[in-house]
Amino acid sequence: MTDHSPVTALSEEECWEFLHGQEFGRLAFHLANEVHIVPINYAIDDDHRIVFRTAEGSKLLGLTMNADVAFEIDEFDEEEARSVVLRGRARQLEGSEVRETEQLPLRPWVDTAKFNVIAVEVDEMSGRQFELTRPWLHMRPHEEE
Amino acid sequence: MTDHSPVTALSEEECWEFLHGQEFGRLAFHLANEVHIVPINYAIDDDHRIVFRTAEGSKLLGLTMNADVAFEIDEFDEEEARSVVLRGRARQLEGSEVRETEQLPLRPWVDTAKFNVIAVEVDEMSGRQFELTRPWLHMRPHEEE
Repeated sequence: MTDHSPVTALSEEECWEFLHGQEFGRLAFHLANEVHIVPINYAIDDDHRIVFRTAEGSKLLGLTMNADVAFEIDEFDEEEARSVVLRGRARQLEGSEVRETEQLPLRPWVDTAKFNVIAVEVDEMSGRQFELTRPWLHMRPHEEE
Repeated sequence: MTDHSPVTALSEEECWEFLHGQEFGRLAFHLANEVHIVPINYAIDDDHRIVFRTAEGSKLLGLTMNADVAFEIDEFDEEEARSVVLRGRARQLEGSEVRETEQLPLRPWVDTAKFNVIAVEVDEMSGRQFELTRPWLHMRPHEEE
């Protein structure tokens, strides 16, 4: 038992800052009665939406059937980890909405055709920072200095 | 257009090798009619199940209501990314089943009480490797050699 918790909550501002600083996350979505998860490249638009592109025929178009989604980003080093999870509603953008996303820093990491643009409006969000114990890392031999 | 695809499928063996080599992933699960996602520490047991611990009162115990889950791991550097996604059924272990997991390298990264052990039996799995284009990385100034 320690006097302080190894887990602390991130403020809403810290969550948004983290979301703006990353461009790779994981989206969980319904497909019929199943839950699916997929890594995506994303950007945040001026309306604080998670925006990403997806290919025609993608399972992600199951989103048109059930808009309820969850999204996660994280990062960690040897000392601490941070994650933000959020839930929201996804919708495929059309026409002028798509054009408005074209100036976003939505940089596809992989050179494949992705013509559909999806935006997730965030309904709830939480972020946590973890102090890592991971004692086995400290059992590594140290370099001589 | 290029002659080869920047995305290649990982073999089942490569997926398992990747799963064995990591210990941090993201679990997507149903909670009532919602989809949720949470980062977890996991280990693979001898029955090829994803095993992790969770705290009493966790949302994850929604798993007792709907066993359908998805799980994802990934890693990337400047040249390429890899991810494995899988779907399966989650179940809380009890009694001797819990004791059998005690020799697993299931190393909690964070020092909080987690008394429930969950195992996910894998029903379907796929892995992909992506050649990254990310041209903006190559726009960084180079060090003189």
